[in-house]
Amino acid sequence: MIAVAVLGHGVVGSGVVEVLERSRASISKKAGTDLYVKKILDIRDFSHLPYGHLFTKSFDEIVSDPEIRVVVEVMGGISPAFEYVSAALRAGKSVVTSNKELVAAKGAALVQLAREHGQNFLFEASVGGGTPIIRPLHQSLVADEIDEIVGILNGTTNFILTKMIQENMGFDEALKIAQKLGYAEANPAADVEGLDTCRKICILASLAFGSHVYPDTVEMQGITNITLEDIQYAEDENCVIKLLGQTRRIDGKCFVSTGPCLVSKESPLARVDDVFNAILVRGEVTGDVVFYGKGAGKLPTASAVVSDIIDCVTAEGPIATLQWSDSDGSNVIDAREDVCPRYLRCRGKGLLAKIGAAFGEVHILRRPGKPADEEAFTTAPVSGYELEEKLAALASQGVEVLSNLRVWRP
Amino acid sequence: MIAVAVLGHGVVGSGVVEVLERSRASISKKAGTDLYVKKILDIRDFSHLPYGHLFTKSFDEIVSDPEIRVVVEVMGGISPAFEYVSAALRAGKSVVTSNKELVAAKGAALVQLAREHGQNFLFEASVGGGTPIIRPLHQSLVADEIDEIVGILNGTTNFILTKMIQENMGFDEALKIAQKLGYAEANPAADVEGLDTCRKICILASLAFGSHVYPDTVEMQGITNITLEDIQYAEDENCVIKLLGQTRRIDGKCFVSTGPCLVSKESPLARVDDVFNAILVRGEVTGDVVFYGKGAGKLPTASAVVSDIIDCVTAEGPIATLQWSDSDGSNVIDAREDVCPRYLRCRGKGLLAKIGAAFGEVHILRRPGKPADEEAFTTAPVSGYELEEKLAALASQGVEVLSNLRVWRP
Repeated sequence: MIAVAVLGHGVVGSGVVEVLERSRASISKKAGTDLYVKKILDIRDFSHLPYGHLFTKSFDEIVSDPEIRVVVEVMGGISPAFEYVSAALRAGKSVVTSNKELVAAKGAALVQLAREHGQNFLFEASVGGGTPIIRPLHQSLVADEIDEIVGILNGTTNFILTKMIQENMGFDEALKIAQKLGYAEANPAADVEGLDTCRKICILASLAFGSHVYPDTVEMQGITNITLEDIQYAEDENCVIKLLGQTRRIDGKCFVSTGPCLVSKESPLARVDDVFNAILVRGEVTGDVVFYGKGAGKLPTASAVVSDIIDCVTAEGPIATLQWSDSDGSNVIDAREDVCPRYLRCRGKGLLAKIGAAFGEVHILRRPGKPADEEAFTTAPVSGYELEEKLAALASQGVEVLSNLRVWRP
Repeated sequence: MIAVAVLGHGVVGSGVVEVLERSRASISKKAGTDLYVKKILDIRDFSHLPYGHLFTKSFDEIVSDPEIRVVVEVMGGISPAFEYVSAALRAGKSVVTSNKELVAAKGAALVQLAREHGQNFLFEASVGGGTPIIRPLHQSLVADEIDEIVGILNGTTNFILTKMIQENMGFDEALKIAQKLGYAEANPAADVEGLDTCRKICILASLAFGSHVYPDTVEMQGITNITLEDIQYAEDENCVIKLLGQTRRIDGKCFVSTGPCLVSKESPLARVDDVFNAILVRGEVTGDVVFYGKGAGKLPTASAVVSDIIDCVTAEGPIATLQWSDSDGSNVIDAREDVCPRYLRCRGKGLLAKIGAAFGEVHILRRPGKPADEEAFTTAPVSGYELEEKLAALASQGVEVLSNLRVWRP
């Protein structure tokens, strides 16, 4: 018999309890031992629940209980989650979390701490919800060198962009529908400004390349400024606009970026719609592998947490393939070093001549009702440094840049 | 230091040696110990190779070597592969294979034998080439009940069908191109008649539902009779024709089938082209998860084999989540019990009236140049038993059935 404690009885926490209760027999069979929830930490009152007697407001009660072998952290946020997780690992318990903010901020330290104490710190549910990605990345693709990871990692923004693309709906209206359907929070900033995607691509980059990538070292752009005009121009380039997290190995370091990109309709990522997520992993020998599924949801996420619990129970000691070291940020290149084609939308007078002077040959895009003082185009591959110079030249001639997006072609 | 032996130096075997040599440092780091190839079994002469001194023609030399901890079986076929794998497991060595024929025929026995001897029998490379599917299925989705698996599991036939669909090319011509490009064998029977797909869906069904599914108990149809007419009619139904392996949980048993199906273009599976594979796993709580990648290739497959080797080395004892029991075939329902819509193409006189009398309302399909004595249509969901009756009624009225395919809608 193995006892589990759950820290936080929110959406995911209650889902974990539900999955463990509902499938206790089959889960226990697969774990090779009976698994049960012994304690749930939450400061709120849940005494009305059938399992109301499991609740405690004292973390000490959990950390000092030798029967509790696995602690599930689903509170969210950095503090006190970080302190609780650290204490649990030090007390010789394995920890499972769905908290991407925690993993993105403290992953290296917690993986290391777990290892020192002969325990595991697992976080499958932090990226992709119920879609397996963390474990395939460090385990199944272990014999390959990862070259690149590109993902649609946030269901809320993908839902909004899908509405904009398919129904010609403006951002604000699409956001309202997402909120009504429960896909977006009342305060949607973390989603629509790209922070959620940024945390997730940092976790994937850390795991794939072995050195921690901190979110605050990463280029980040949200989707709040994407307009229907951009969507129409993208269509003319045979592309859709998707919010991508991307990372690539470059000369022993890595490029990491979060932002809306033009994605060729030829790519499998272009066809990922609504709240679905998809993660393309390009291995040196494996080629492109894509993982596709719902990126969120109470029970899918809970199911991923429970699979990690089973891993903690069946593993003897730390899982060898899951490791990355801390970093001082020098593992991440300045995003301006990356060379890729760009999509630009500008306003001004005599645009075509000015654009031609700055960029040479470009692909001018069309949309119905385009005003005379607006042009949109895609460029040849260009570095961020070159781009800055060209944009400065345009600005000095009175050209206003309304949109500036990377173009991602598989 | 851990020594590995490789049985068979064909495409995959030489790939395994290549991957292990090329990435020895990073693989050894991830495995936590130095991994090296000590012996290679092959009856052919490879003494000219740089590692020619590793070859042996004696399996006894391998099985009796206590330094060899992992045996890689990449010979193919049942015999002597089965005898060698059994002997290796009995000698306390773990075994990794890419041999789907062996796993489909003997999986339950070998998983059990491995367990008895405290070893692992792993076969990630037997399905999906380098695309991770076996491990996610038993490990990442362990906390969920699998309801259904539907896959495009054979790259050769998917390449042929893609040529037929996109370039309006006949089967024979598309097959010849596949052979020229090395995608199809000189004798393509195992691919085009569905046997390869059948073996793979049997492995996935066994793993997902816990009881061995033997290929000879499974409904199987190849793509050799698919014509351009069928492809055109499918288009009119907004579908493409794909060779699917499918399995579903039904009342504690499972339905398993291999055959070309009409797949709605709305499905992510419809967009999987060329030699790519994709496997859709529908979990009770996780919903649809899709794994997409190249299903074959020397190095991708070798990379999957090597990830299994690392698993064998880092696991302490048998991996708990990988288990299924043997069966007497009663775990698989008669495929005729499955109820699904059908696509039928018929020839005869007064067809519309006869079809209406047999099937009631159907969806009549169109194609350019349709002769007056031909009709194609899709039916409402119908069981195989009902279908047999209706087809008998049509036959008694002189109607010839030219095509009979399942329709799969997600």
